[in-house]
Amino acid sequence: MTTTAIQDEYSDDVSHCYGCGRLNQDGLHIRSFWDGAEAKAMFTPSPHHTAIPGYVYGGLLASLVDCHATGTAAAAARQARAAAAPAGPPPRFVTASLQVEYLRPTPLGPPLSLSARPTEIRGRKIVVEVELTAEDQLCVRGRVVTVEMPEELLRPAVASSPIS
Amino acid sequence: MTTTAIQDEYSDDVSHCYGCGRLNQDGLHIRSFWDGAEAKAMFTPSPHHTAIPGYVYGGLLASLVDCHATGTAAAAARQARAAAAPAGPPPRFVTASLQVEYLRPTPLGPPLSLSARPTEIRGRKIVVEVELTAEDQLCVRGRVVTVEMPEELLRPAVASSPIS
Repeated sequence: MTTTAIQDEYSDDVSHCYGCGRLNQDGLHIRSFWDGAEAKAMFTPSPHHTAIPGYVYGGLLASLVDCHATGTAAAAARQARAAAAPAGPPPRFVTASLQVEYLRPTPLGPPLSLSARPTEIRGRKIVVEVELTAEDQLCVRGRVVTVEMPEELLRPAVASSPIS
Repeated sequence: MTTTAIQDEYSDDVSHCYGCGRLNQDGLHIRSFWDGAEAKAMFTPSPHHTAIPGYVYGGLLASLVDCHATGTAAAAARQARAAAAPAGPPPRFVTASLQVEYLRPTPLGPPLSLSARPTEIRGRKIVVEVELTAEDQLCVRGRVVTVEMPEELLRPAVASSPIS
């Protein structure tokens, strides 16, 4: 397991994500750690991240699945290209499709554990499967289709970035 | 179109949702308006709700789809039962499965429009399809399987509600 989160290695211009960007001061700061085969993350929701009182909001759980999956894709892609590519920031993946199954209500309070692994790597597309547990009980399962961010997505943002 | 949001009619004990609860002071306050066949909502993300700079965070978009769909399910269920049930708060639906397709990057800045309609009503389960547009362009499509909240979900929360 690495000691640096994959999101903390993203280049500055793609580090503003509300879910996982280190440069977003108001964000969730989801951080994923890659061990060569899968990625782990821990996250403790805030009291206001409630759904029905006592349980975690489903939109937050979807956010955790989302950012942990794109981080996993970035780590897996960098590893797959390591022999051919120079060392540097990992490639940045974005989400094309997000599927989240809420298997049981997730208790609000204890830290949540996420694990994710790539199940399909094909060119610029990586499919990632995610599991989220609370107190050792599987609560949420996710499947995320990620794609490598097209370069042109950054161009219009240079002059109009909403976060300095 | 009603002038009262469906979420504003939820009973107090199920109005703490981070996405749409009127009693969650830190929440997003998503509000859905039912016209008898479909529900509409508008939401303007904050500048910190960014993904790649210039675009809306996918986890927020998933949250909008989620709460707008459960609100739609509540309105549709109340309407379907109107002849048999006394007037009162709408039933509360929660999410069993959430699927979100990100068809194009959603620009951060303009208000987002959501529309949703129930496509399957079967007992306590309602399937809702959602479309989200920005500047008249379809950006996100969602499909949400909702189920009516089991009564027992409220019991453990009475003594330990994280939000007063």
